[in-house]
Amino acid sequence: MSSLDTLVESLRRLPGVGAKSASRMAFHLLQHDREGAQLLARALQAAAQQIRHCERCNTFTESPLCSLCADPRRDAGKLCVVETPADQAALERTGAFRGYYFVLMGKLSPLDGIGPREIGMHQLMARALDGQVSEVILATNFTAEGEATAHVIGEVLRARGLTVTRLARGVPAGSELEYVDLGTIAHALVDRR
Amino acid sequence: MSSLDTLVESLRRLPGVGAKSASRMAFHLLQHDREGAQLLARALQAAAQQIRHCERCNTFTESPLCSLCADPRRDAGKLCVVETPADQAALERTGAFRGYYFVLMGKLSPLDGIGPREIGMHQLMARALDGQVSEVILATNFTAEGEATAHVIGEVLRARGLTVTRLARGVPAGSELEYVDLGTIAHALVDRR
Ligand SMILES: [Zn+2]
Ligand SMILES: [Zn+2]
Repeated sequence: MSSLDTLVESLRRLPGVGAKSASRMAFHLLQHDREGAQLLARALQAAAQQIRHCERCNTFTESPLCSLCADPRRDAGKLCVVETPADQAALERTGAFRGYYFVLMGKLSPLDGIGPREIGMHQLMARALDGQVSEVILATNFTAEGEATAHVIGEVLRARGLTVTRLARGVPAGSELEYVDLGTIAHALVDRR
Repeated sequence: MSSLDTLVESLRRLPGVGAKSASRMAFHLLQHDREGAQLLARALQAAAQQIRHCERCNTFTESPLCSLCADPRRDAGKLCVVETPADQAALERTGAFRGYYFVLMGKLSPLDGIGPREIGMHQLMARALDGQVSEVILATNFTAEGEATAHVIGEVLRARGLTVTRLARGVPAGSELEYVDLGTIAHALVDRR
């Protein structure tokens, strides 16, 4: 296989990139942006080597603790559970939450073989039962899978005696947090139930 | 900047990839496909180092001559001018053309600063005037820029005494060859004017 074919095949592994898009990307990089190709190559290698998961919240980080978990000024009594770093970022942008997070890095999806183990349920339980957390706020997406994930996590944590709340349904059903406007998220946070 | 931010920024240099797509790609690679990230990094480096331009037709190749230009069984009297390797591949799939190609690797676009020099006009003239080529078939896209490119190239080559033809307008106006069905392209090739 030529190195051009190999490049096109490798680009197709990116989510949402089909054969035509991959060819166009390869053409663009080779014809107009070889510097970009080199930068991307180095960025991929650096990221794959350096990025690990935060020991406390499970998000991506290059240190044992991410910068948010390492910040002692947050409210240790509140733990907010989100699906992805992008969802966490959306909540942070509202400025309405001052506690800590746990990032599932996914959602329950039995048909794809993603069960409690894959979303770090064991790690989440240890984190929520640290003795300081008094309330766990479930901020998974308001999709079918996000709701199911919230339900399962809520059952487990309530059985351990924790107070578990859910973002209010001010967030439009069927939507993903990442794409919801800040005001809606902030309001849903205040009205959590 | 963290290596995650660097990766997202680098992915945004790909055509058609915005901030959200880049974040999703980075998340996917780091969470689900680190092998894919490594493969893509190596493919980018290999391609950027090894891929050059064919000395005769200007397309991408890892040798001085591409495999098509190195094939002595083609009809040396006919030279087909296309915009991109993808357009050349579309023509080859029809099986209706047995001559050689010249690949502009772009099209005239004065507003973007892409003039005759950038599309290899000098190299094309040397190629077309090799003494063997008797007909140059212009197969640039049937877009405004592709038509303008065909017009300019046609003027220059006819002034040098070459026979210049254009794919018949069986190709729907406004469309790009890469996306046209084989039969239409084959018919347009037979009806070239
Ligand atoms: Zn953390
Ligand atoms: Zn060639």
